[in-house]
Amino acid sequence: MTDAAPFIPGLMQDRPLLISSMLDYAAIYHPGREIVSRAVEGGIHRTSYGVARERAMRVAAALQAYGIRRGDRIGTLAWNTHRHFELFYGISGMGAVLHTVNPRLFEDQIQYIVRHGADRLLFVDPTFLPIVRRLLLHAPSVEAVILLGEASAEDREGLDGLIDYEDWIAAQPPIVGWPVLDERAASALCYTSGTTGDPKGVLYSHRSTVLHAFAAAQKSAMNIGCDDAIIAIAPMYHANAWGMAYIAAMTGAKLVLPGPRNDAENIVGLINDEGVTFACGVPTIWTNVLEHLRITGGTLPTLDRTTIGGSAVSPAMIDALAAHGVRTLHLWGMTEMSPLGVVATVTPEVAAMDAETRARQLTKQGRAQYGVELKIVDEEQRTLPHDGKAAGALWVRGPWITSAYYRREDEPLLDAEGWFPTGDIATIDPLGYMQITDRAKDIIKSGGEWISSIELENAVVAHPDIAIAAVIGVPDPRWEERPLLIVQLSEGREVSEGDIRAFLDGRVARWWVPERIEFTAAMPLTATGKIKKTALRELYAAPVHATGEAAE
Amino acid sequence: MTDAAPFIPGLMQDRPLLISSMLDYAAIYHPGREIVSRAVEGGIHRTSYGVARERAMRVAAALQAYGIRRGDRIGTLAWNTHRHFELFYGISGMGAVLHTVNPRLFEDQIQYIVRHGADRLLFVDPTFLPIVRRLLLHAPSVEAVILLGEASAEDREGLDGLIDYEDWIAAQPPIVGWPVLDERAASALCYTSGTTGDPKGVLYSHRSTVLHAFAAAQKSAMNIGCDDAIIAIAPMYHANAWGMAYIAAMTGAKLVLPGPRNDAENIVGLINDEGVTFACGVPTIWTNVLEHLRITGGTLPTLDRTTIGGSAVSPAMIDALAAHGVRTLHLWGMTEMSPLGVVATVTPEVAAMDAETRARQLTKQGRAQYGVELKIVDEEQRTLPHDGKAAGALWVRGPWITSAYYRREDEPLLDAEGWFPTGDIATIDPLGYMQITDRAKDIIKSGGEWISSIELENAVVAHPDIAIAAVIGVPDPRWEERPLLIVQLSEGREVSEGDIRAFLDGRVARWWVPERIEFTAAMPLTATGKIKKTALRELYAAPVHATGEAAE
Repeated sequence: MTDAAPFIPGLMQDRPLLISSMLDYAAIYHPGREIVSRAVEGGIHRTSYGVARERAMRVAAALQAYGIRRGDRIGTLAWNTHRHFELFYGISGMGAVLHTVNPRLFEDQIQYIVRHGADRLLFVDPTFLPIVRRLLLHAPSVEAVILLGEASAEDREGLDGLIDYEDWIAAQPPIVGWPVLDERAASALCYTSGTTGDPKGVLYSHRSTVLHAFAAAQKSAMNIGCDDAIIAIAPMYHANAWGMAYIAAMTGAKLVLPGPRNDAENIVGLINDEGVTFACGVPTIWTNVLEHLRITGGTLPTLDRTTIGGSAVSPAMIDALAAHGVRTLHLWGMTEMSPLGVVATVTPEVAAMDAETRARQLTKQGRAQYGVELKIVDEEQRTLPHDGKAAGALWVRGPWITSAYYRREDEPLLDAEGWFPTGDIATIDPLGYMQITDRAKDIIKSGGEWISSIELENAVVAHPDIAIAAVIGVPDPRWEERPLLIVQLSEGREVSEGDIRAFLDGRVARWWVPERIEFTAAMPLTATGKIKKTALRELYAAPVHATGEAAE
Repeated sequence: MTDAAPFIPGLMQDRPLLISSMLDYAAIYHPGREIVSRAVEGGIHRTSYGVARERAMRVAAALQAYGIRRGDRIGTLAWNTHRHFELFYGISGMGAVLHTVNPRLFEDQIQYIVRHGADRLLFVDPTFLPIVRRLLLHAPSVEAVILLGEASAEDREGLDGLIDYEDWIAAQPPIVGWPVLDERAASALCYTSGTTGDPKGVLYSHRSTVLHAFAAAQKSAMNIGCDDAIIAIAPMYHANAWGMAYIAAMTGAKLVLPGPRNDAENIVGLINDEGVTFACGVPTIWTNVLEHLRITGGTLPTLDRTTIGGSAVSPAMIDALAAHGVRTLHLWGMTEMSPLGVVATVTPEVAAMDAETRARQLTKQGRAQYGVELKIVDEEQRTLPHDGKAAGALWVRGPWITSAYYRREDEPLLDAEGWFPTGDIATIDPLGYMQITDRAKDIIKSGGEWISSIELENAVVAHPDIAIAAVIGVPDPRWEERPLLIVQLSEGREVSEGDIRAFLDGRVARWWVPERIEFTAAMPLTATGKIKKTALRELYAAPVHATGEAAE
């Protein structure tokens, strides 16, 4: 290979991949397709892509008039609504950076994030005004707060400069056409709330966002078209609702947004009223939905499939959804990955399996998609085989995966070949399905052997009367670590420690059965609905008092 | 908007979109998925993505060892086979430019093309050795010819330096990993044989090829996944088999290649033997397939859908395929567009139509996909509305559409806003479906009104005994132009001029009915299976002898 050869570029049009082009597509070719929101004020709000683009272009015009420049960060503290959708396109489309702040974080984290992002403006739902009042004392970069709805005089107290969103975007005509930006320009910022240290900012680009939408919409992943109605249950402040706000526009799909209410009644009502075919969300949402359907005798006639991610999905949940005619697509990703990831769609080899083997296969996190490379390595960084057995640290690489954290660009994150460390332990099988066996920090080492907290949790939650199960490792003088099981029972059910141990007998290795089992009425969850293992460790991590039989 | 703002790039990984990455994906995650070819020697050849990558990497190694540099053009004169597939990835993957030469062109055009591309090597199927023998006298850039199969001593006569492909790629180990190229580097070259002037070269890039595959595989277009088996009937020398060689690898789909035989027996046999679910090709292929099925009583049990493009598809053909359980997805594109284009997939609005209206809707060329912008303009370049009525010149824009022709980069092709003129006249309806009403040069102006040759052809071919119909405009002293109809009857059928006129009565305006009808036993077709209207014009374009009643 002679590298001295002159570079010969192809002669294709040099059109950048821009976020605004996805909304343009939807507005021009699917102008009447609906965006349906549960409004913050209650009730249902209906709009369309055609109207949403016109309003997003007003947002862009108002930002320009205010003096917002390309690259400036603009914060949002908002639910999944049509106004938040307009901000996604208006802010990024005019060249500024959409900074979706997670309002469920501790307030000191919110304050840290807005300060770190140096947001110039904040768009907030009325719900969050109390947070904002305190936030403004700690975030000097914020010049103005724009209110995305109605608020009483009481709620507005101490916030004299509040701008009303509807007045603000009505004040001038929409921009005429979107600016042509560099596709590698920053478009959005989302912080991950790690369990240790300060939150870290992932800075997406227009290019990464469009490529991610292309990949996520594929048949091998979510298989989205304009004949779908999508409900975006994953919050728009959490990895952009898993890309839904972009994927829906790129494909012309109907978009349903649950607003401030992720309760089962609202979710089930919207799915059935709006003919939703596709949903996405974390397992706890579906635990609640299934419980609601059980109690009310409700059904989900239009819902065809749901991608579930954020935490591992138990086989019991997959079965329960299948009984309602809903296919579960297990999905795995990270904020750092935009967020996909892998999806457990069916290959011909899996389709040919007997039902039981296939069901087991589909509890894996999913199979590799074009655009995301996966590797697993041992402790000496040697690549491990795709045999479904060797478990190692999972690294990922691809054009929608982060290379560094915002304003921490000088901290090395990738390895020499550009791979990002996920912090998960995983296997990859010969069919390309990846399975997380543990978070690197959650894995339990007992008697020199590994116990997978996820496998143990799945075994426990298969019990019909147990709603949620969590396993953490606790120090043990004899075995180094032992698993501690915390369970939350289904409403109105009674189960004893002995019942659980009897249930586990034969389902997991004998030495995996926890000596210590705790019951909780409300499992601590993170802002994004995952089990908060840090909180469990604080509550329960005292050493085990008596050790029983462990490694065989 | 302050343009002086500093550029803030996103922090996503800077991974280029490379053709080699699609084969890597298929080989790593679908290593055993088959590539099945009708071999040039006859018989069926089976290989897999895992093996194909290893062999493509041998091609790359052999090219490097030979001294091929990035950007060098490498010609192929080859059928759709596994070897051609390996060349697609081996040549582009190592950084050279794959130049697929259409062997069905006139030899002086082939000579022009190879000379113009300045190809250093030629890979040829044995079929084409006679062409090559003469070609070498006119293409001094060609340093060596590599033979993709067996040939007799007689066939090799005068070609002493012929290199045997299998020996050549066996001579050294495969490269270890693909080079990391600039995604905007030229990857492939394909000439369009215009009806006037010299053929023009379209120079694709790695970026445009990957983006095109992403878009073409979407649910809104071809909806391809690893559960599909694709037969690429469109030739690999014609816009890269409409992208099939790339789409199949990106999605891990099984790929079936018909080799040198596009006869109906081979196509139907491969579809049924290999469980093909998805096909692509020009209408004439399907005319033959339907005729074959009629005669043999054959069926197509696994075939789910076919994209048909290259020429307009008649409603009669769509109905006949539907009777075999095959959905027709009308498709329109151009070599200059990689080649997509639009695809006539169903939106919710079309699904809700009554059967007859829906059928009519789906004879349109198709609906806009994300990534391809369409505009129609009048003679003063004013944009026309999407009302399904206004017809105007069709212009297109997008990242997989050409900006200039190879070695004609200084000839302005696009308008000031970057749009490419397709040369077609089209309407766009409110649902986003585009319909070609004519090639700009095929439209017939009669008595000051336009007659659409396509609509008239469709009306004629609905006759059960007519296989192919072509309409050209011929000069007329009274009406300026009049339509002349040329028909090819189905085998063994008899139809008179009077029968045809009677059949058209009530199906088209009276003044559209042609005074002159000619019968042909073999419609002249282009190398890519389109009706060769240039040849028809040469044969029939004498003025109409007698003019009947024309414009009402």
